[in-house]
Amino acid sequence: MNPTHLVGPVLVIGTGLLGASIGLGLRGLGIDVVLQDISPSAQAVAVDIGAGRALRSGEQLQPELVVVASPPDVTASVVATALERYPAAVVVDVASVKAAVLADLQDSAGPRPDLSRYVGTHPMAGRERSGPVAARAELFTSMPWVLCPSPASSAAAIKTASSLAIDLGAVLFRFTPEEHDEAVALVSHLPQVMSSLVASRLQDVPLHALALSGNGLRDVTRIAASDPSLWVQILGANADRLVPVLHGVRTDLNRIIATLEAPTAPGARLDMAQLISEGNAGQARIPGKHGGPRQPYAWLTVLVDDRPGQIARLLTEIGEIGVNVEDLRLDHSAGREAGMVELSVMPKKRETLVQELTERGWKVLL
Amino acid sequence: MNPTHLVGPVLVIGTGLLGASIGLGLRGLGIDVVLQDISPSAQAVAVDIGAGRALRSGEQLQPELVVVASPPDVTASVVATALERYPAAVVVDVASVKAAVLADLQDSAGPRPDLSRYVGTHPMAGRERSGPVAARAELFTSMPWVLCPSPASSAAAIKTASSLAIDLGAVLFRFTPEEHDEAVALVSHLPQVMSSLVASRLQDVPLHALALSGNGLRDVTRIAASDPSLWVQILGANADRLVPVLHGVRTDLNRIIATLEAPTAPGARLDMAQLISEGNAGQARIPGKHGGPRQPYAWLTVLVDDRPGQIARLLTEIGEIGVNVEDLRLDHSAGREAGMVELSVMPKKRETLVQELTERGWKVLL
Repeated sequence: MNPTHLVGPVLVIGTGLLGASIGLGLRGLGIDVVLQDISPSAQAVAVDIGAGRALRSGEQLQPELVVVASPPDVTASVVATALERYPAAVVVDVASVKAAVLADLQDSAGPRPDLSRYVGTHPMAGRERSGPVAARAELFTSMPWVLCPSPASSAAAIKTASSLAIDLGAVLFRFTPEEHDEAVALVSHLPQVMSSLVASRLQDVPLHALALSGNGLRDVTRIAASDPSLWVQILGANADRLVPVLHGVRTDLNRIIATLEAPTAPGARLDMAQLISEGNAGQARIPGKHGGPRQPYAWLTVLVDDRPGQIARLLTEIGEIGVNVEDLRLDHSAGREAGMVELSVMPKKRETLVQELTERGWKVLL
Repeated sequence: MNPTHLVGPVLVIGTGLLGASIGLGLRGLGIDVVLQDISPSAQAVAVDIGAGRALRSGEQLQPELVVVASPPDVTASVVATALERYPAAVVVDVASVKAAVLADLQDSAGPRPDLSRYVGTHPMAGRERSGPVAARAELFTSMPWVLCPSPASSAAAIKTASSLAIDLGAVLFRFTPEEHDEAVALVSHLPQVMSSLVASRLQDVPLHALALSGNGLRDVTRIAASDPSLWVQILGANADRLVPVLHGVRTDLNRIIATLEAPTAPGARLDMAQLISEGNAGQARIPGKHGGPRQPYAWLTVLVDDRPGQIARLLTEIGEIGVNVEDLRLDHSAGREAGMVELSVMPKKRETLVQELTERGWKVLL
């Protein structure tokens, strides 16, 4: 596969976050983008922010590519209509579930659409924010973009779909629709459900208890802030893949509840240790930064005052020392105006860094 | 309450992460610290790192304060012994559950211990790492330290316990043992169990699926890396408080599973929206940085190359512009050597910052 650049025109149907961002990105490359949305006001906003133009009166559009960025539950019918209306165009969709869309297209009641020109795709670039106002040209930069061709997809259609992802700076992956849906059920939909379940428990907690919230709770519940209307469609469309995963969770949850209901029974401690150990094992399999193998980074913590420029000064000096910061976290604390910066670096750099920072007067916590 | 500084000597029983860190911190203040551990090698390591000294042969120690930093399940008996052996000392423990320890002391079979000199406490400064080697004097700096006096605790004992926390730089909270245990069941033990349950599901996922892991999964599973042997004791000791919380989770989980098993049934979409909405509501209650009210921070994202000094240069220039960074996250991406820095700032500063950074040539993603 040796993708070339898109030429255009590109028709984008649906001008929410993804559609408008695709339009902005392609317009930035000088490609003619036509925008279409069933909501005239959403379409007008997307045109106003520069994501493309409206169809001209009487214009006979012959797009190279149609991008269907409609809500997941109407995606298949919009794709089928686009395949029929634009017989020379490649049609892709960007819905975050793939098998259901393909099945709907294959089973469609009307004239059988020409699926050789269709490729399902999923740019993994969602945010908590939504709508065209949150759109940005660089939304896809360095993010995974999964191509899920069907057996019917032609090589030419796959090439055009690849060009779209690459032109927008994304990193290409190629999965079958079933592989994709199983993967996102685990790496995206499961954490969303579990984060929402944890956060939901906090609704009736007294405020004084929440004062003890630490980074653990904050991390686990961050994505619980996501948009309900989007997630209704995602969860509904991938329910078949997600349900078996949640059954597995329920089995484990029932086991740990039964254990905790009799915490001094024989074997109870082993059961608890097993829950945590199995979590250790699963967590260790998540790949590291940039998709490469997990690097055994070394961590150190530096104490900083909470005022402008402190973290900057720290990182400037680390840059002077010549060490690359692989990851960085701010450690928040209740009631105090001081912060801790946790840094990860390559292990061989750690000792030098600790020594040099200490010499420069930084308080390094070992 | 107007705490004064500790004078010493202080006896620390148990030289794991917490005991050794307390010793290091007090030694840094010039206080005489005596260390004691049932494991002679653990005690020797703690002495070697400077956390205190061993008891001298024939020495009749008369400590001002005894800190019991033993594992949770032996804490009560160690506290009872210390109260008896040192009749002039205040005794505190640092176990992460409080009601069970107090109940054990009140119900102890032997001579009734003098509970006027005992105060249960919980420094909320645990880490994934453990043992005296991970200890550090600043472990408690700016972290919550909860005092849970019993009705029997004397004002003098509470004052001494407060002095310990304040001398070590912590932020004092005062809860009843029951309030404390209910709070940590929700803000600490629940997220741990749920994070482990999610991570556990990843044990058998194909590696290509894990390549799609994003920040959502990473956040939710970070604390799944915690130490099983410690958590066995914490979960076991607070099982009574945690079980009702997990029952609530199970009810919600059963509801969402039933909904997803019939995702097109009447009311199914409403059920899914409700799960996510309830998560929104709970997540919004978590207090902001430094325990103050949640600030409506404004976010922006800046694209940076992944090489030494880039983030430093960015933060230096933000410091020059005079804006304080309230929070910062690195956005990792698979397969690409580029990163995105998400910054939160006070909303009124955002527009200036975007404009100035853009003028300085930074790629700011709106």
